[in-house]
Amino acid sequence: MDFAAALKHLVTQVETGLDRYVTAATTRPARLHEAMRYSLLGGGKRLRPVLTLATARALGLTDDSALPAAVALECVHTYSLIHDDLPCMDNDDLRRGRPTVHRQFDEATALLAGDALLTESFVILSVHYSSRPTLAQALTRELADAASSRRLIGGQMEDLLAEKKPTATVDELEFIHINKTAAMIEAAFVMGGICAEAPQDSITVLRTVGHHVGLAFQIIDDVLDATADTATLGKTAGKDAKADKTTFVKLHGIESSRRLAHEHSQAAQTALHSLTGDSAFLQALIESMAARVN
Amino acid sequence: MDFAAALKHLVTQVETGLDRYVTAATTRPARLHEAMRYSLLGGGKRLRPVLTLATARALGLTDDSALPAAVALECVHTYSLIHDDLPCMDNDDLRRGRPTVHRQFDEATALLAGDALLTESFVILSVHYSSRPTLAQALTRELADAASSRRLIGGQMEDLLAEKKPTATVDELEFIHINKTAAMIEAAFVMGGICAEAPQDSITVLRTVGHHVGLAFQIIDDVLDATADTATLGKTAGKDAKADKTTFVKLHGIESSRRLAHEHSQAAQTALHSLTGDSAFLQALIESMAARVN
Repeated sequence: MDFAAALKHLVTQVETGLDRYVTAATTRPARLHEAMRYSLLGGGKRLRPVLTLATARALGLTDDSALPAAVALECVHTYSLIHDDLPCMDNDDLRRGRPTVHRQFDEATALLAGDALLTESFVILSVHYSSRPTLAQALTRELADAASSRRLIGGQMEDLLAEKKPTATVDELEFIHINKTAAMIEAAFVMGGICAEAPQDSITVLRTVGHHVGLAFQIIDDVLDATADTATLGKTAGKDAKADKTTFVKLHGIESSRRLAHEHSQAAQTALHSLTGDSAFLQALIESMAARVN
Repeated sequence: MDFAAALKHLVTQVETGLDRYVTAATTRPARLHEAMRYSLLGGGKRLRPVLTLATARALGLTDDSALPAAVALECVHTYSLIHDDLPCMDNDDLRRGRPTVHRQFDEATALLAGDALLTESFVILSVHYSSRPTLAQALTRELADAASSRRLIGGQMEDLLAEKKPTATVDELEFIHINKTAAMIEAAFVMGGICAEAPQDSITVLRTVGHHVGLAFQIIDDVLDATADTATLGKTAGKDAKADKTTFVKLHGIESSRRLAHEHSQAAQTALHSLTGDSAFLQALIESMAARVN
């Protein structure tokens, strides 16, 4: 199978998993479950869950037992987008080419749908790995830590605080991106490793890979926001500059940012080489992420 | 030790645990951790975590190993209050006699502090029970389920939907209160049982006890909102009637509501009698909850 077909296969697997493991839209209260599924099943690259499945596979897992972990991760990612789009945060109208949840439903429903997706991820881990409690505990710890006040939410908080200052420092920018973006991409790799019962030294390598992939991803995001158009992005373009956001582009300029993204991408590939297993697909995936246009 | 002293002892234990297990206020970003701790450590009856500790003790647990579970439960409860107070929800200014988090800080900080406390609860369970993964998994499952879109958040959603309708039905009122309030009180009892490694039939009894205690608690809440003053309550009184909320008082009147609360309280006591263990303190606690004035 070539790269594109293999990727499509994994994305389909993720979408099937999302539909299977997340509470049905008809469950009471239907409006809440509709809002959760509206955002969860409304497209997206499925990057994080695909990374989890591909990592588990690279490390020798042959069954589908990483799928609930991948779905849980995507639930947390989606909740963070819903809350990030709210009026008191980025106040955004468009996400993945469609109205944001608070635009399509209303603000209270968006707040609760986000809360519910975050909670659902821990329901999924504890229910679908109930026969393997050690795995359930390790996955819960990794996901909760990545999503915590010290990482994902902490990065969002510093992002908000940085917006209010005349200039943000390189240290602040790094804190924001290491935590707001890289934490969840690190978790994607590590959770794949946990599902494959990889040894601790492999987990450490995966964390390094995820760190660099995450930073490359965020820098490219900043570059695309400054250079691509809204139709290509599927979300409002140019909003970083408009909001005077602290971005790599603002601090380093477009060309330096591109070079920095390339360096992180290469560092991830180098770390990946030290991993025992078949990482050809993961390498291709990291390459494609570095070359993405949206 | 008499009841009041025993209760005070447990409340102190909970407060110490909250301070010990929740990320320090000085952790970066400090503003986020300050907001989390502002709401978490700003008083409150600590009913749910006290129930967890008392249940574990009644079922024979002699060490402090239920404390992280109790703290996790209080984190989820506090997050739900922060989000419930937000402008897009109840838009409330006062909680536990102090400005609500979005009033004291700002709306975005309150949103993120709520998200962070929900996440922190799963960090606490997975970190502090890491040497007992079966326990970690069972506690995570119970807490996540109680807080899920089918229970706590589902109850809040139906509460919002009911407000928009001219009249809500008894069925809607029951769904709201069984899920918005009783779910977390059920979880308080059940998590205590899980920590004490109680057999399945005891867990079933605890769930019944929690169900009735939860409903009695909510009915009394509705009665107090209609009859007590703001100073006594420590939160805005009379707001149910003002918002035309669907409450037991609105549907049944004050006297019938009081009778119903008494019936649920009695049903809880009866169920508790069938439990093997020393439930004298729990019985006194349920009695005191039925007689509370705030």
